[in-house]
Amino acid sequence: MLWKGDLVQKSDVSVSPDDRGYVFGDGIYEVFRVYNGRFFEKAAHLDRLERTAHGTKLKLPWTMPELSELLDRLLEKEGTQESILYMQITRGEAPRIHQFPKDVEPVLLAYCKDYPRPVAVMENGITAVTLEDIRWLRCDLKTLNLLPNTMAKQEALDRGADDVIWHRGGTVTECSASNVMMVKDGVIRTHPANHLILHGVTRAFVLKLARQLELPALEKPFTLDELANADELFLTGTTVEVTPIVAVDGRPVGSGKPGTVTRQLQRAFAEAIALV
Amino acid sequence: MLWKGDLVQKSDVSVSPDDRGYVFGDGIYEVFRVYNGRFFEKAAHLDRLERTAHGTKLKLPWTMPELSELLDRLLEKEGTQESILYMQITRGEAPRIHQFPKDVEPVLLAYCKDYPRPVAVMENGITAVTLEDIRWLRCDLKTLNLLPNTMAKQEALDRGADDVIWHRGGTVTECSASNVMMVKDGVIRTHPANHLILHGVTRAFVLKLARQLELPALEKPFTLDELANADELFLTGTTVEVTPIVAVDGRPVGSGKPGTVTRQLQRAFAEAIALV
Repeated sequence: MLWKGDLVQKSDVSVSPDDRGYVFGDGIYEVFRVYNGRFFEKAAHLDRLERTAHGTKLKLPWTMPELSELLDRLLEKEGTQESILYMQITRGEAPRIHQFPKDVEPVLLAYCKDYPRPVAVMENGITAVTLEDIRWLRCDLKTLNLLPNTMAKQEALDRGADDVIWHRGGTVTECSASNVMMVKDGVIRTHPANHLILHGVTRAFVLKLARQLELPALEKPFTLDELANADELFLTGTTVEVTPIVAVDGRPVGSGKPGTVTRQLQRAFAEAIALV
Repeated sequence: MLWKGDLVQKSDVSVSPDDRGYVFGDGIYEVFRVYNGRFFEKAAHLDRLERTAHGTKLKLPWTMPELSELLDRLLEKEGTQESILYMQITRGEAPRIHQFPKDVEPVLLAYCKDYPRPVAVMENGITAVTLEDIRWLRCDLKTLNLLPNTMAKQEALDRGADDVIWHRGGTVTECSASNVMMVKDGVIRTHPANHLILHGVTRAFVLKLARQLELPALEKPFTLDELANADELFLTGTTVEVTPIVAVDGRPVGSGKPGTVTRQLQRAFAEAIALV
């Protein structure tokens, strides 16, 4: 693991009970993807980390090139051909008080984990249930305040599905740890990248693929009614890539099988990562 | 400190990087007040803890009497005449995955801290700024997802004030770590205890004092406009008790001095805790 700047064994990591990550969830994170032993879209993840740090006023003691080099060292030590690299940075250790303490050192934790592509799931698709999105209004910030996300994921499982599709008063936002896109009459639709959704790196990458494939795509909110009439539905995310959603609330999406646009994007994605 | 059921030294506490409190803020907490070496409103805090555990589906391995006894032991060891007891419980340690892991043991951390009553602040009052409340829609749950609260407190300080008064679209909710009440023409008003505010133990205690004093009090939302015309304003909380707010957004509240209703409630509060 990478812990406070050093490569150490997991057993050597001892988090302080004063770490603001532990008492406030006061920290930020990223999950990087590794294909062929190399980072995929690393710069985009670092960009988002920087935006989240700015949005939470968490002053990073590293420049992005310095952080990038730390991650390279970690990947070299722990990475496999197909892995993820989890990294979180908390604001630091200080006696519990709400305001940001002065002169604290942010605490960095990162590690790699072998993570083969979820081929069967991407082939067969998943099921989802819809749920009111009750999160805060800065979902664009990738912070450690993830309790609503964990509760939503658990609720999906409790209801016999794989994930939730969140909506705010009927307007679809995203899933518990990924973005969601629908296809109707050949047009891809997804929620705009504002404060109500995470600005997914894979979301942006898939929209770029759509442009290259000349598939029309709109960043425009859609409703639960529109979702119910979608021809295709899929989610996008760093670990799930492009995964079809084949049923929502117990009803099949379109034919109940992954659709042609979804398959086109999956193929284009597979081709792109083969070149990493 | 109380750590996983044992009374230990702080230096013996080593939080796991797999603790869900650390990676998701997946945990709940309470801050208990101690006067005269004894707990104040302990049962009310334990009740709220149980409600939060239920709301977050966090299965506690202790009954409330068992937990209560653990807290007694901690207080006996670490408590002073006027202290607070901070206690948090995370869902447990497990490899990072959103859904709730099975068969994990919740992790309990608690400690006492000497905490004299903030007499000068209660005498002179504080200043506040108003800020849009962007938190999630289960503010009644007392969880470790406190980043918005810490950001709001810091924003208040950055703007030269002591705290924020949150509002949703103009309807006042609460402060960053306390409830808020206004007084107009002798009538106390405060937001109802629904999903938009924390159900403060001190809030309920103060409403009870108001009834005993035959001061009319309404649990009914009020707007920023009504707040701007309030005669008095004060916040209620476990550590701040009844603290006057004497200015909001740079404008004095009423006369700019703590008001008579506020003073009546402060006196009644002081009398009540003298009997603990």
